Amino acid sequence: MKNSFGDSIIITLFGESHGEMIGAVVDGLCPGIEIDDGFIAKKLSQRKAAGSLSTKRREKDEYRIVSGVFNGKTTGTPLCILIENGDTKSSDYEKTVGLLRPSHADYTAECKYHGFQDFRGGGHFSGRITAPLVAAGAIALKMLEKKGVVIATHIKRMGDITDRDFGEVSADAEVLSNDSFPVLNGEAKEKMISLINEAAQKGDSVGGVLESVVHGVPCGVGEPWFDTVEGCLSHILFSIPAIKGVEFGAGFGFANMKGSQANDAFAVRDGKVTTLTNNNGGINGGITNGEDIVFRCAVKPTPSIFKQQDTVDLNTMENAKLSIKGRHDPAVIHRARAVVDSVTALCLADLLAQRFGTDYFTE
Amino acid sequence: MKNSFGDSIIITLFGESHGEMIGAVVDGLCPGIEIDDGFIAKKLSQRKAAGSLSTKRREKDEYRIVSGVFNGKTTGTPLCILIENGDTKSSDYEKTVGLLRPSHADYTAECKYHGFQDFRGGGHFSGRITAPLVAAGAIALKMLEKKGVVIATHIKRMGDITDRDFGEVSADAEVLSNDSFPVLNGEAKEKMISLINEAAQKGDSVGGVLESVVHGVPCGVGEPWFDTVEGCLSHILFSIPAIKGVEFGAGFGFANMKGSQANDAFAVRDGKVTTLTNNNGGINGGITNGEDIVFRCAVKPTPSIFKQQDTVDLNTMENAKLSIKGRHDPAVIHRARAVVDSVTALCLADLLAQRFGTDYFTE
Amino acid sequence: MKNSFGDSIIITLFGESHGEMIGAVVDGLCPGIEIDDGFIAKKLSQRKAAGSLSTKRREKDEYRIVSGVFNGKTTGTPLCILIENGDTKSSDYEKTVGLLRPSHADYTAECKYHGFQDFRGGGHFSGRITAPLVAAGAIALKMLEKKGVVIATHIKRMGDITDRDFGEVSADAEVLSNDSFPVLNGEAKEKMISLINEAAQKGDSVGGVLESVVHGVPCGVGEPWFDTVEGCLSHILFSIPAIKGVEFGAGFGFANMKGSQANDAFAVRDGKVTTLTNNNGGINGGITNGEDIVFRCAVKPTPSIFKQQDTVDLNTMENAKLSIKGRHDPAVIHRARAVVDSVTALCLADLLAQRFGTDYFTE
Amino acid sequence: MKNSFGDSIIITLFGESHGEMIGAVVDGLCPGIEIDDGFIAKKLSQRKAAGSLSTKRREKDEYRIVSGVFNGKTTGTPLCILIENGDTKSSDYEKTVGLLRPSHADYTAECKYHGFQDFRGGGHFSGRITAPLVAAGAIALKMLEKKGVVIATHIKRMGDITDRDFGEVSADAEVLSNDSFPVLNGEAKEKMISLINEAAQKGDSVGGVLESVVHGVPCGVGEPWFDTVEGCLSHILFSIPAIKGVEFGAGFGFANMKGSQANDAFAVRDGKVTTLTNNNGGINGGITNGEDIVFRCAVKPTPSIFKQQDTVDLNTMENAKLSIKGRHDPAVIHRARAVVDSVTALCLADLLAQRFGTDYFTE
Repeated sequence: MKNSFGDSIIITLFGESHGEMIGAVVDGLCPGIEIDDGFIAKKLSQRKAAGSLSTKRREKDEYRIVSGVFNGKTTGTPLCILIENGDTKSSDYEKTVGLLRPSHADYTAECKYHGFQDFRGGGHFSGRITAPLVAAGAIALKMLEKKGVVIATHIKRMGDITDRDFGEVSADAEVLSNDSFPVLNGEAKEKMISLINEAAQKGDSVGGVLESVVHGVPCGVGEPWFDTVEGCLSHILFSIPAIKGVEFGAGFGFANMKGSQANDAFAVRDGKVTTLTNNNGGINGGITNGEDIVFRCAVKPTPSIFKQQDTVDLNTMENAKLSIKGRHDPAVIHRARAVVDSVTALCLADLLAQRFGTDYFTE
Repeated sequence: MKNSFGDSIIITLFGESHGEMIGAVVDGLCPGIEIDDGFIAKKLSQRKAAGSLSTKRREKDEYRIVSGVFNGKTTGTPLCILIENGDTKSSDYEKTVGLLRPSHADYTAECKYHGFQDFRGGGHFSGRITAPLVAAGAIALKMLEKKGVVIATHIKRMGDITDRDFGEVSADAEVLSNDSFPVLNGEAKEKMISLINEAAQKGDSVGGVLESVVHGVPCGVGEPWFDTVEGCLSHILFSIPAIKGVEFGAGFGFANMKGSQANDAFAVRDGKVTTLTNNNGGINGGITNGEDIVFRCAVKPTPSIFKQQDTVDLNTMENAKLSIKGRHDPAVIHRARAVVDSVTALCLADLLAQRFGTDYFTE
Repeated sequence: MKNSFGDSIIITLFGESHGEMIGAVVDGLCPGIEIDDGFIAKKLSQRKAAGSLSTKRREKDEYRIVSGVFNGKTTGTPLCILIENGDTKSSDYEKTVGLLRPSHADYTAECKYHGFQDFRGGGHFSGRITAPLVAAGAIALKMLEKKGVVIATHIKRMGDITDRDFGEVSADAEVLSNDSFPVLNGEAKEKMISLINEAAQKGDSVGGVLESVVHGVPCGVGEPWFDTVEGCLSHILFSIPAIKGVEFGAGFGFANMKGSQANDAFAVRDGKVTTLTNNNGGINGGITNGEDIVFRCAVKPTPSIFKQQDTVDLNTMENAKLSIKGRHDPAVIHRARAVVDSVTALCLADLLAQRFGTDYFTE
Repeated sequence: MKNSFGDSIIITLFGESHGEMIGAVVDGLCPGIEIDDGFIAKKLSQRKAAGSLSTKRREKDEYRIVSGVFNGKTTGTPLCILIENGDTKSSDYEKTVGLLRPSHADYTAECKYHGFQDFRGGGHFSGRITAPLVAAGAIALKMLEKKGVVIATHIKRMGDITDRDFGEVSADAEVLSNDSFPVLNGEAKEKMISLINEAAQKGDSVGGVLESVVHGVPCGVGEPWFDTVEGCLSHILFSIPAIKGVEFGAGFGFANMKGSQANDAFAVRDGKVTTLTNNNGGINGGITNGEDIVFRCAVKPTPSIFKQQDTVDLNTMENAKLSIKGRHDPAVIHRARAVVDSVTALCLADLLAQRFGTDYFTE
């Protein structure tokens, strides 16, 4: 039980929202990988998604890589990314210490850490900790890209508003990569933004569904039992705050299908084995089959809302009312996109390095 | 990347469907746990679910525990469970070698193992391998029971047929435990059985959704990043063949909710902190909050159907038609119930032993 | 904390000396490796080393591989080796239950397992558990051999009797492989055997030092911190009962050296970088340098001696006298040779598969 | 294969000697542990051991703990320690790039990292990386101290000069803790210092043997196979640069003993089971028996000597001469003491937290 993930390429996260620094150590990166600062900044910017839809906290997100890089390339030794915390308004939190924020980790942190946790701004549970995770993931995304692996994520659904399906992956990936609100269909996009704004005006928040596609992973990666690709991906995806469901291919839709509809028939195309449909989301028996890996994540509405809520005051152990102040998002789903891309890249880079050796990504 | 799961209590599976034996090693079990053979047999019987709805293969499932038990109790050293394979009709498979069964692992096994895999009956990918997994899980279920933890699973949905919600967990658990087709509402149960029989008559199969509840896990178990309870549970759940989606609490339903609906307000009850709703399924920030852990698994229709299917013959690398013969289930969801219970128990026993030490379950 | 070892190729041991079966599961073996039963039998025979110097227990050591092998080759899925326990005289042990055998694990087992351990014949602590370990190691030794890696171990020292140094590794390996008492110098061998016989006549036992050489491991394997080659090898070596010291290269001899004597100067030979001496035993900074890996293991005298010993009776918690009966060895060092070879092979195969991928050993 | 160690309390090291920062992340620390900055500084000072015997590099060793601590106590979330690199003279190294330093990791780094490694000052292989390791270990030492566990290390031998044996552990520990050159016997200490000075004058260096004792670890910690206490301790000890041998209890001395001399007889003392001798160094069958854990580490002479050495120039692949310049130690054994204490504390704290749960050290 630990704050690390991976067997060959391993990420460890540290830091608290209002502490001195947050960061990540990535161990096992193949040597010789070029660090693309512009791309890291781009993914961090997707995660921050500044604008009217997002938190007013001005995070600088100025990361520093203090180890594991020499002359602009990975050395192969552990890479440490640091981000300093600035613009923290801890006083917002001091006032409400003891008042448990519903659907946040305040109460579970208390149970686990017996009151020693840093409660300010969610501490180690804060969504802010995803910043170094995204920076690390950006490195993995670039590694995969050089191996022909493309990852893209869009908001598939918000309430009853649905985005179109993925088409040609590379083209869609390009479009999404340049949009801070990743929706493919323009009309759906406008409606979703309206939905968020409406919720914001009422001091409320919204959830949704993210859909991801991974193109270009070779077949034969993953294990039949326990370390299936689904198991490994879901393991890391569920550590993204707000994600409460993960499904692959047809997922929960399988409940309404017959085997004859659900099965992905095989066919030869260009001398290679392919499937005519992809209801299994690119994975059979826990192992990649060379088709696109497709999955969706359920994102719960941001728990920090401005509407008054019923809660408990831990200091008095009595029922109480809570009105959250501070800077909070009416939606995080568009920001979570960058985190989903990042953890997916880290997980797949790890699986590939286990499968093909620690020089696999060395250029 | 491996065929093991767990950090403190670790299970490793081995064996092939038509090999000599299948089995499991469970390491890290606390010493002094009584082995309840009747209960293990009961869970194995739930998994086998003999009857008109299930495979005609007559598995004896006569397990032997050959190590780690002395005088009827665990010793604390690795426990090995063995089950011999009998009644295998390998000839059924020999005929179709090279014809990839759609949505099975035949092709991915070929990619990963380069033709050295034991292809007979799905080999190591066979659902049969869940028999020792269920036997091991039955030991974990009993360990948890003595600590006041109850686990129950029912078929929540099949097509458009929906079972009622869980009520009082202990009572529902008792009912489900004595039913080989675990549905709480009698009418829904009959309809689901009819649906399976209809599919069977057409040489087809059905999928569905399993819903599980875990009552009595203390708060404060799990980690904020990576080893969240959702992450650990989904990791092991996805290794059950046919499971393609996992959601906790409101899960994908969150996409239609506002924060003010989704948040679980806190209240004091009997001097303890509780929540008024349980949309988060008993987990906040990756850590248990003391409420029931609730999750659902999407189960895809059995891929072995008797309808003719399009496929590829690996020997000729040409398109081909496949008509599966042999003994196969039109539905596995009712049998998968026992596997879900088992892996849930193994995962939670592991998390509890990590949290509270290796003597936690010693009586 | 577990009874498994390895990251990519993982071995798990189970079983008790007087239980039904003992065995091992080896996960992560590359597919397509030929199982050489003759070689496995040979290594098991080295471990058994029947004869006047060894235990009178007649172990049949008839292993069965019940999974992970198909058509004589590994499938790539977990391989399970089983050995049945026969000829157990549990009654020898029943009589002395409660009388702690000095320098055995009776007392520590009691502390750890609270009386639930299988005490008969040392239970899970018995040297007998090394039989499946040696069988597994024999598979790894063959895998390495095909990659040009040769492992050999001899008794370097017993009391004041010293064997000659290793010469040409392949030739010495060949000689040792055919000798159940692995000593290179004939005179030293005779003296050591005499020493054991003398001790045996007095109801006593002897210890010694094993020296191993590994030829042919490519450079660049291992990690700078924590998972150094020395760290990984010593980790698994120390789990061999009786081993209480491990040194690499000059080892404890470094204490009498100056840097100018200790340093291994580099030189170009046949266009490759080599060292003129090998005081570092083939490892610099935790990583292989391409020279022979050389290490020595201290083996303590067999704790089961027939001389009367002072001890404690756990039942009465009073001082007591113990006279061990049964079948015991005056020396285990020559038998431990096969175990050292085996765990060395497992460890290095694991490091190589991590480094070069899971197909590295596939032929 | 990774730069981390531990299962419940896990340390990860990062950084290069001449990079921006070096550091460590410690995950799994129980919440509520007071950070004793004075003690951390003291252990860092032991490691630095400034003075005529040590490197001239002026490391400030000003560490910052940037996460995992709140109000002076651990929170239970990952703790990150950072140390900035100052006073680096990279130019000393630039000049000799390509000239492999004998018995350093220059060549193995090249093999593993294909030229992408940061070669300056040994990069990630530098002894400097032990600074954050010692800081982390100091926290573990304090945790253990509150549980009654005392760890002490002295220089047992250097050349033919031998320190006296440990007497009463607490008293000796106190003495050693206040001495930057940890030798118990005054005369032996003077002789050792003279030996080092003599070597230094000749541009040479010396090795030696460190001996450690751990008092107060409860019995029943460790595993019979693979994760033995000896295996875990040696694993982490061998990652200390310069350590090439580890022995427990009588260690290599067992080769000259008979079983009747080697066995540790049991006796009842104050109602508890104890042993009359401690040749097994507090560990039987891989598990602690409650006696003092005793072990010795072989330390090789510092490889950086000023005498001219034979080597290879990687740029030309020709034989060459190397005269090392810069700031180097004629001995590191007295400095390594602090590192041995630290890794021992980290390993035992991990084993105890695994055994007794993650709240074991919470005050």
